[in-house]
Amino acid sequence: MPHINLPDEIPGIGAAFAFRPETAEPMRELAHILLFEPGEDAGLSSRDRELIASYVSSRNTCYFCQTSHGAAAANHPGGSKELVASVCASPETADISLKLKALLKIAAHVQGDAKTVTAEMIASARGEGATDLELHDTVLIAAAFCMYNRYFDGLATWQPRNEEMYQTMGKRLAEYGYAQPVLSAR
Amino acid sequence: MPHINLPDEIPGIGAAFAFRPETAEPMRELAHILLFEPGEDAGLSSRDRELIASYVSSRNTCYFCQTSHGAAAANHPGGSKELVASVCASPETADISLKLKALLKIAAHVQGDAKTVTAEMIASARGEGATDLELHDTVLIAAAFCMYNRYFDGLATWQPRNEEMYQTMGKRLAEYGYAQPVLSAR
Repeated sequence: MPHINLPDEIPGIGAAFAFRPETAEPMRELAHILLFEPGEDAGLSSRDRELIASYVSSRNTCYFCQTSHGAAAANHPGGSKELVASVCASPETADISLKLKALLKIAAHVQGDAKTVTAEMIASARGEGATDLELHDTVLIAAAFCMYNRYFDGLATWQPRNEEMYQTMGKRLAEYGYAQPVLSAR
Repeated sequence: MPHINLPDEIPGIGAAFAFRPETAEPMRELAHILLFEPGEDAGLSSRDRELIASYVSSRNTCYFCQTSHGAAAANHPGGSKELVASVCASPETADISLKLKALLKIAAHVQGDAKTVTAEMIASARGEGATDLELHDTVLIAAAFCMYNRYFDGLATWQPRNEEMYQTMGKRLAEYGYAQPVLSAR
């Protein structure tokens, strides 16, 4: 049961968003820019951004975020359920580019203790073609999911185990992103 | 030295904000609502919100955020440098309300592993008068600083040890908040 009085028909972080639409708006906008809008110089694809989000959420053992962003990644071009599972289980052996592997390593360090990101890790990602914008976005996606995951878990929001629901959500997120208006339920 | 090419005259998180104004805008807006604007039903004072931000940053050993938000807390009514130091060192013995002590305990658990926030901790804060909005904002401030701190540290941004600079910053934040426009430096 959630720790505060949240609307009980809305799963996951959406219930917290409905409770406080003032803070939900910038949080949704941040997710929309980080995960859905392409970077100025193209940068990482939405599939890769969602893979970073799902991977960081899996390291924070946040089922709702891992599953919903995993479903979004799977619904973007080049994505699949199997790819998402293999990235969360072991990025090193997943069928992804060496650049994304190097970025996921940085994301894992940001998720744990961000001070442990080393110049060598950055140089290694650059060696595989990562730009400053891609490095920046990787760090910020990892940092932002340390917020979203904690927000979700710190309020003990409802996280249903309903695979169909996450599939539907993943399709919607891959098509429209995160910019939907938030309805107040307070 | 920062891991990516950031404007070198801007200290702390501001350099990262200038690098990517698109993401800086919602991040600043979130901080402004969470720390500066009063809640609808009044809720926590800005001093108390900034104390939570500084305390969480101290637990993440993020010098820049701890010091700048500590200076903001000190500059709000009822704040002082000594109070900030005592809250960061030991909330249990600091000269603050029992309600704020109970909320800081919740914030510490969100900072560590948000799943360890218990119904008992929530009931204890409610027993001291905490509302749902105050509980919500405590969880989200703690979660958000797990993002800001990691963003800062994951990019290895410049964090000067210049007390006067933080004092000036604290005064400005306590007066105007976080809604200043972000200038692009990319």
